[in-house]
Amino acid sequence: MIILNGGSSSGKSGIVRCLQAVLPDPWLAFGCDSFVDALPARMQESDEGITFVADGGVTVGADFRALEAAWTDGIAAMARAGARVIIDDVFLGGAASQERWRKALGGLDVLWVGVRCGSAVAAGREIARGDRIQGMAASQADAVHEGVFYDLEVDTTRTESMVCARTIAARVG
Amino acid sequence: MIILNGGSSSGKSGIVRCLQAVLPDPWLAFGCDSFVDALPARMQESDEGITFVADGGVTVGADFRALEAAWTDGIAAMARAGARVIIDDVFLGGAASQERWRKALGGLDVLWVGVRCGSAVAAGREIARGDRIQGMAASQADAVHEGVFYDLEVDTTRTESMVCARTIAARVG
Amino acid sequence: MIILNGGSSSGKSGIVRCLQAVLPDPWLAFGCDSFVDALPARMQESDEGITFVADGGVTVGADFRALEAAWTDGIAAMARAGARVIIDDVFLGGAASQERWRKALGGLDVLWVGVRCGSAVAAGREIARGDRIQGMAASQADAVHEGVFYDLEVDTTRTESMVCARTIAARVG
Amino acid sequence: MIILNGGSSSGKSGIVRCLQAVLPDPWLAFGCDSFVDALPARMQESDEGITFVADGGVTVGADFRALEAAWTDGIAAMARAGARVIIDDVFLGGAASQERWRKALGGLDVLWVGVRCGSAVAAGREIARGDRIQGMAASQADAVHEGVFYDLEVDTTRTESMVCARTIAARVG
Repeated sequence: MIILNGGSSSGKSGIVRCLQAVLPDPWLAFGCDSFVDALPARMQESDEGITFVADGGVTVGADFRALEAAWTDGIAAMARAGARVIIDDVFLGGAASQERWRKALGGLDVLWVGVRCGSAVAAGREIARGDRIQGMAASQADAVHEGVFYDLEVDTTRTESMVCARTIAARVG
Repeated sequence: MIILNGGSSSGKSGIVRCLQAVLPDPWLAFGCDSFVDALPARMQESDEGITFVADGGVTVGADFRALEAAWTDGIAAMARAGARVIIDDVFLGGAASQERWRKALGGLDVLWVGVRCGSAVAAGREIARGDRIQGMAASQADAVHEGVFYDLEVDTTRTESMVCARTIAARVG
Repeated sequence: MIILNGGSSSGKSGIVRCLQAVLPDPWLAFGCDSFVDALPARMQESDEGITFVADGGVTVGADFRALEAAWTDGIAAMARAGARVIIDDVFLGGAASQERWRKALGGLDVLWVGVRCGSAVAAGREIARGDRIQGMAASQADAVHEGVFYDLEVDTTRTESMVCARTIAARVG
Repeated sequence: MIILNGGSSSGKSGIVRCLQAVLPDPWLAFGCDSFVDALPARMQESDEGITFVADGGVTVGADFRALEAAWTDGIAAMARAGARVIIDDVFLGGAASQERWRKALGGLDVLWVGVRCGSAVAAGREIARGDRIQGMAASQADAVHEGVFYDLEVDTTRTESMVCARTIAARVG
């Protein structure tokens, strides 16, 4: 299993697609975006669900946490059933978020990858993408890495997604 | 757990979103579309993955089946971990597809729902959506229901998604 | 030229795609969605641009109106240059919106089509789509038709997009 | 008016969104993608329309050319009606494509911008995006610039979209 952690607009999704292209075996890819898509629409923008504040902040509630825990267990079960899985996540809770994954994944072999991107560059890419609330990139750029342990870190500030993917792939199997 | 089975453009996704809106508890929704999105791009259009033929036919290969089996186990694990889960699927293998789900879900409480839609109406909606290969709706409309057992069937030919969702919700706990 | 007017979630886009499929000549399709996509992101949610209120209301400002007028002139020019064009719009100003189009289109031959949908059904479809702010369908269902003249009206409440499209196509050429 | 020309995955759309964000006045943005979206679905993949070949090649037919000419005239009319307009296009015909725009735009003041991106980097970004046929980036990277005159060229190979946008914006009014 490969878990990528990085702030919004740090380039995680692009690296994931490149990883799926360069790794010889087929890997499934899931992430916080696909999890949020699976939630009821009303939980997006509610105190019990997930709230995107105008300045780029994100807060999540009790129902979100409960469903996320079940989702994490399910992802772990997919890996135990033999699937190779790549996860891209935003550790809003830093080290505590990593600890949640670590517990759920039990004895599974995980490659922890930090995806860094300079705050100003990520903020520019957030505008270039056009589909994200402005401010998330800057507010998450450093916070999501606090206290997190990695096997490997890549930095997309001046390195292409494909190059980062090849670096990560070289550490797999 | 709720599992909806129906052909392409039969209206499953709309019913799922309505179900998430009318059910008082929060339910996670996954489906064959989100599974295909999780696959490497190269498996879409390959003999080992999934192939969409120009006439609307769909064939899947060995790698697809292996990853799908792991994914199914993972969904079952999410439900066992306490999440309420709605699945929308296209049983390309009819009764055999249902049997695969049944085995993976073990002792879980499942509401099996058939989503019917008249072939001509589904073919028209396929054109109106504009994002599907033409022919899938017609070729799947009846085939996916062959030999499948349901607790409940809805028919979107002349019934709105929201009305179907309320009928299904009335059968849930 | 064909101009369809109807509230949000009344089914205009589906009818447009069906029209493009059944009309023997190639027709270009534009609409208020493609116009809003062409605006700077910052004009979505600003007093000068367009604002989607939480209850489904929509207000537009001076900059929006100025760019919309230029866009309308451009669409008219496409038709004068020989393109067959289908427009789907939401006449937020009712008769005044139609008058704006009528002036811009000068001597062009236009088929005015009203797209009706019962308010409750449109509100259900808005939830089924999952990508619209809830409340727009209900608040626009009747208001956009006030004082508007049509050559033809269709009602999607109980009629499929494809059937509506065939009715409209029968009036073309 | 600003016209950006560059190959697929050279980063035009990102620059356009950044331009709309940094330019003080509101600019409308259109491009070849929005034009193709306006075509009937059946023209995508037909000899008379546009065909995307498996190796990344693109060919367009007579109907496509006729509608494109009317569309170009309409864009020119929007600019003459007072709208500030940014276009991003792929000059598949190189100098001949530019000549078509130049004729349609008559006396309008145009800033011609070339968007370059190294072929290998563009090919990597094409994989990272995940929504384009592979091979287009490489096959178009140089060909679209042949014989084309520019007021300004930017190169996204090692320069962020936002930085390119600021360079272009500095040349506007």
